[in-house]
Amino acid sequence: MTETAARRLESYVLGSWQTGSGAGKPLAHAATGETIAFIGSDGLNFADALAYGREKGGRALRAMTIHERALMLKAIGMALMERKEEFYVENTWTGATRRDGWVDIEGGIGTLLTFASKARRELPNTKVLSEGDVEPLSKDGSFAGRHILTPMKGIAIHINAFNFPVWGMLEKIAPALIAGMPCLVKPASQTAYLTERVTRAIIDTGFLPDGALQLVCGSAGDMLDHVTGQDVVTFTGSATTGRKLKTGKAIVENAVRFNMEADSLNAAILGADSGPGTPEFDLFIREAANEMTSKAGQKCTAIRRIIVPRVHEQAVVEALSERLSKATIGLPDDENARMGALVSLSDRDGVREKIAALLGDSEIVHGDPDHVALVSGDAEKGAFMSPVLLRCAKPFDARAVHDVEAFGPVATVMAYDDAAEAVALAERGKGSLVSSLFTNDGGIAAEIVTGLAAHHGRVMIGNRGSAKSSTGHGSPLAPLIHGGPGRAGGGEEMGGMRGVKHFMQRTAVQGTPDMLTAITGEWVDGAESRSGKHPFRKSLAELKIGDQIVTETRTVTREDVEHFAEFTGDTFYAHMDSDAAKANPFFEDRVAHGYLIASFAAGLFVDPDPGPVLANYGVDNLRFLTPVYFGDTLKVRLTCKAINPRENAGHGEVRWDCRVTNQKDEVVAQYDVLTMVAKTWPLSAEALDQMAG
Amino acid sequence: MTETAARRLESYVLGSWQTGSGAGKPLAHAATGETIAFIGSDGLNFADALAYGREKGGRALRAMTIHERALMLKAIGMALMERKEEFYVENTWTGATRRDGWVDIEGGIGTLLTFASKARRELPNTKVLSEGDVEPLSKDGSFAGRHILTPMKGIAIHINAFNFPVWGMLEKIAPALIAGMPCLVKPASQTAYLTERVTRAIIDTGFLPDGALQLVCGSAGDMLDHVTGQDVVTFTGSATTGRKLKTGKAIVENAVRFNMEADSLNAAILGADSGPGTPEFDLFIREAANEMTSKAGQKCTAIRRIIVPRVHEQAVVEALSERLSKATIGLPDDENARMGALVSLSDRDGVREKIAALLGDSEIVHGDPDHVALVSGDAEKGAFMSPVLLRCAKPFDARAVHDVEAFGPVATVMAYDDAAEAVALAERGKGSLVSSLFTNDGGIAAEIVTGLAAHHGRVMIGNRGSAKSSTGHGSPLAPLIHGGPGRAGGGEEMGGMRGVKHFMQRTAVQGTPDMLTAITGEWVDGAESRSGKHPFRKSLAELKIGDQIVTETRTVTREDVEHFAEFTGDTFYAHMDSDAAKANPFFEDRVAHGYLIASFAAGLFVDPDPGPVLANYGVDNLRFLTPVYFGDTLKVRLTCKAINPRENAGHGEVRWDCRVTNQKDEVVAQYDVLTMVAKTWPLSAEALDQMAG
Repeated sequence: MTETAARRLESYVLGSWQTGSGAGKPLAHAATGETIAFIGSDGLNFADALAYGREKGGRALRAMTIHERALMLKAIGMALMERKEEFYVENTWTGATRRDGWVDIEGGIGTLLTFASKARRELPNTKVLSEGDVEPLSKDGSFAGRHILTPMKGIAIHINAFNFPVWGMLEKIAPALIAGMPCLVKPASQTAYLTERVTRAIIDTGFLPDGALQLVCGSAGDMLDHVTGQDVVTFTGSATTGRKLKTGKAIVENAVRFNMEADSLNAAILGADSGPGTPEFDLFIREAANEMTSKAGQKCTAIRRIIVPRVHEQAVVEALSERLSKATIGLPDDENARMGALVSLSDRDGVREKIAALLGDSEIVHGDPDHVALVSGDAEKGAFMSPVLLRCAKPFDARAVHDVEAFGPVATVMAYDDAAEAVALAERGKGSLVSSLFTNDGGIAAEIVTGLAAHHGRVMIGNRGSAKSSTGHGSPLAPLIHGGPGRAGGGEEMGGMRGVKHFMQRTAVQGTPDMLTAITGEWVDGAESRSGKHPFRKSLAELKIGDQIVTETRTVTREDVEHFAEFTGDTFYAHMDSDAAKANPFFEDRVAHGYLIASFAAGLFVDPDPGPVLANYGVDNLRFLTPVYFGDTLKVRLTCKAINPRENAGHGEVRWDCRVTNQKDEVVAQYDVLTMVAKTWPLSAEALDQMAG
Repeated sequence: MTETAARRLESYVLGSWQTGSGAGKPLAHAATGETIAFIGSDGLNFADALAYGREKGGRALRAMTIHERALMLKAIGMALMERKEEFYVENTWTGATRRDGWVDIEGGIGTLLTFASKARRELPNTKVLSEGDVEPLSKDGSFAGRHILTPMKGIAIHINAFNFPVWGMLEKIAPALIAGMPCLVKPASQTAYLTERVTRAIIDTGFLPDGALQLVCGSAGDMLDHVTGQDVVTFTGSATTGRKLKTGKAIVENAVRFNMEADSLNAAILGADSGPGTPEFDLFIREAANEMTSKAGQKCTAIRRIIVPRVHEQAVVEALSERLSKATIGLPDDENARMGALVSLSDRDGVREKIAALLGDSEIVHGDPDHVALVSGDAEKGAFMSPVLLRCAKPFDARAVHDVEAFGPVATVMAYDDAAEAVALAERGKGSLVSSLFTNDGGIAAEIVTGLAAHHGRVMIGNRGSAKSSTGHGSPLAPLIHGGPGRAGGGEEMGGMRGVKHFMQRTAVQGTPDMLTAITGEWVDGAESRSGKHPFRKSLAELKIGDQIVTETRTVTREDVEHFAEFTGDTFYAHMDSDAAKANPFFEDRVAHGYLIASFAAGLFVDPDPGPVLANYGVDNLRFLTPVYFGDTLKVRLTCKAINPRENAGHGEVRWDCRVTNQKDEVVAQYDVLTMVAKTWPLSAEALDQMAG
């Protein structure tokens, strides 16, 4: 520890750091019991803070595009990474070792950076998101529908748990801020000092607009009495508290989105194929021990139930006990300690009580809840505890093992006889954040995982093929959803860009193609279009949605098809053999190649001279809708559909609607052509530089 | 009316029609007051009914594929359409005219059929749905993630409102059954006879497996005390009842998905451009009058607030009053009546009370709540009521007009001065199912609609371009979401295949590519593959995920590129002009055409002889990742990625992963090739027949 003077934590509300009234409640170092900080939020005006966020922060964020918000988060993430060592200092106060802290601190910052990067890769650089296809609602095409997503106009209130003071904040504010919603973070008091440190580092960057992020250290007081139907509340913590908040008057009356992440009785299952001597058995033991000891088992994703084939039950108990006995316990900043302390003495007492309840169904096979051997530290002052492994002999008759969660280094082994029993035991947990399965047999994986899926937000399969690369049972990852049904709270967070949509309202918009185009900024077939200067001659400074070229025509001859076949080597029978083509249920005779149609189409619509169109980088949703026979005449209509300028770049992506028709005006092929187009033309030296980078 | 003997309604639970104990409560004809049925569910065992649905119905539905479920619904929809006239008879008992009933009956059956058709078009024919891209989770590709969706293992309980006894049931059971969840429907008592009639017709078809659909006519009793975390509850009705159910003990403790659809104070806004004399003004008046009078204004989507430019306020009041005065009122089966009755005398009393409350802020400008002129029927016995138009002079100071919903033929006109005010007034409703905007100006539409979006589940734009084709303000449509934030309940239904996912659990699955392939049934790059017999020689009877061909190589020469350019006409500078190509920031020299690469790739991978591959119908997600320069050598790896057999057809769709690499093993192009492949080869006469159809 480099800092010992206990400080009064502050809240960041209404644009400034505020202490609130009174001296605050003391917070103790998890491993030494020293008072390290004082916390309290009395006297803060939460109604004003929420309104400030909604009005000031919301307005500023909604004025930015999605990519602007993402770049802002990227800059913040880089700044945090530079200051990470400051965070590791206070990480030890929470009882966590450096390795425990890595998940929280670097895992949290990494999550922020992943959101910043995925948002720019997967979402357009706009303020309004379109979602899904245009839905035709009339036969003549004059009335259609489209879904859009816009940021909720309220504030996102994040009520977080003590165990991940950094990650818990960052994984929630990242998607909310990218969506365009301001945030107010209310960390759990026990470890709020670390959240406060990180928030100071964020505010210090000056990158966030005023009101975009507020922090309340201390009680939430009457905060949730002031929520509106445009706010979002996310909660991570105990189910009891979560249910109480979720049924609060203002939450219910205003139908406030409430996302709850509660602890759950996650399982790890050993496949029937994976007995002692297999790599999967060893991975299973390693993972179970790791989940029990990392963060001293205080993770909502930790393995609580260890479900194993009956024939291997004794071997699992022995191997796991042996491994746990090697887990040295001591001060979190002691390099010899592999496991630190629980967050507080009272939390340790709570775990002991839960173990007592579990003993109704189960017996202890390793560890002693009341005694711990330490390599450093004082078991009277610090919340140290030995890992405790239990065994439940009759898990189908037991209740406590499936209902009681000891939030510490505690897990219970139980045996199953067949795959259906393994699934049934996992389901007794009534909904979990995650379970894992260790098997090297795809058939076993398919049966058990599809069986488990309805009760789980995440399922990890461990085997030799991912022994080195697996991120493990316990780690939620930014691209994947985190949350589970039933006991786990019924929530869903992250999941890549899904998580951003949790902070937006989905709205179905109906109208003429022109109206949909005006609202979404994306050209809809049937909307106004403009001919004239070839659109390939226009840079982004000039190009507009709806700019269009209707080409000359080209007749496809038998010679063309035969020549193309010979040139490319594609002599598929439908192009070459009249009898075989006629025998094909979809064709009346020999047809032109699909790739020939697309190639001729490009020949018709391309403007050949050097210009702002820099490259064709792809094609989306190409469908060949009508066969092209010899003598058919093709024409192309190419229309500028979406323009996506890149921030900090000399170009942007332009999506073109490409429709190829025949002489009967039947649509032969329909697709999107994807190009990169310069922002200005000719290219400036600066633009060239940016693109080269 | 063709049937007058009052019948005792039955419930369909535990596989049979059951009456429950007692004589039941009488239900009155809305327009004549006659007793038409008796209802009661006393004595039914709801805990058993839920368990029966979960176990029997759930198991049977989960054993079917998505397309099998969809085809089952299609058959049911066709059967219902044949019997629709039976339903129109009892429709009049609800007070609804035939035109009102069309939305409920044919609209409901149409919704069912739309779901059946979209599911087969947009979802694969599988039991497990994959969602989104494979997420790489390790640098070496040995660990990755994918989201899957599987049916929840509980029962979907639908608690429906009185106003759409047919549509209300069908729009909810359709997505649930397609998802693979059994349903229990609890219609509102007032009109449950019609829901019972339709349910009988459904059960009569014999198409549904046992336990897939149950019906409870009468009180829900203690039903919701027995829900689990795998159940889903949907509720449509009053916010008061909805909130009470949503905070029920078992719902909260088990984090049961609860989707609520409450009435809201929906608005219609007249654009500043759309004064008297414009087509939009006329459409606006027509729509407002229609929404007030159809179903006697008893629609959760009906227009309650009419927001107009101040300069046109008087003109709107006059035009609307005139139109309303032409709305003849009478018995629902009287062809001269354009408006029928409210559902009951007590509901009419309720509407009168709400009008009294509205009069605190507003004045009546048309109609009399207490007197009605009838073309037929008896105002003492039937729940008839005149449309009542109010005007609120100071809507920014008023509260009742934004808070009190008179669920009948009642709406209030109010004026705005600019677009921001129009949005602000609409937002005073605190969240609505739908609002509409009438304008012919895209700029006005963009400003107002993006302003409204966060508070709305749906926004309709009306103008001259869709005057004939628009489906109107009040109609939720199967492809679009229905639901809204805040006061509207915070729910979301339908929205095409989004609605199906409301009844499934999303699960992130992590593992090696082989494990992901085994679980999803879709080949993931890096998973096992098999060479040997060319996969184009295999029918669906033989073809397996992972079947692969790695082709010979082909070197792309300058002559190839120049020849292709000349042949297709695509002489884009990057292919033809070395200096211009070098000036392009993405290329070092002249490059091959993307379409040339895809064409040569086909030439390499195609097996030319007649065989089970019937056609290439498209390409998805084509990306050109590395430029191909003269002298580069291409090779293709084509792998069978997904197999989607069509029900009742001789073929299926096969998606191939196509990866083109160069001599340095860099990926040059990556895409999915889409083909139709015969189930057997040679084609049987039957298969040919089916495909020709």
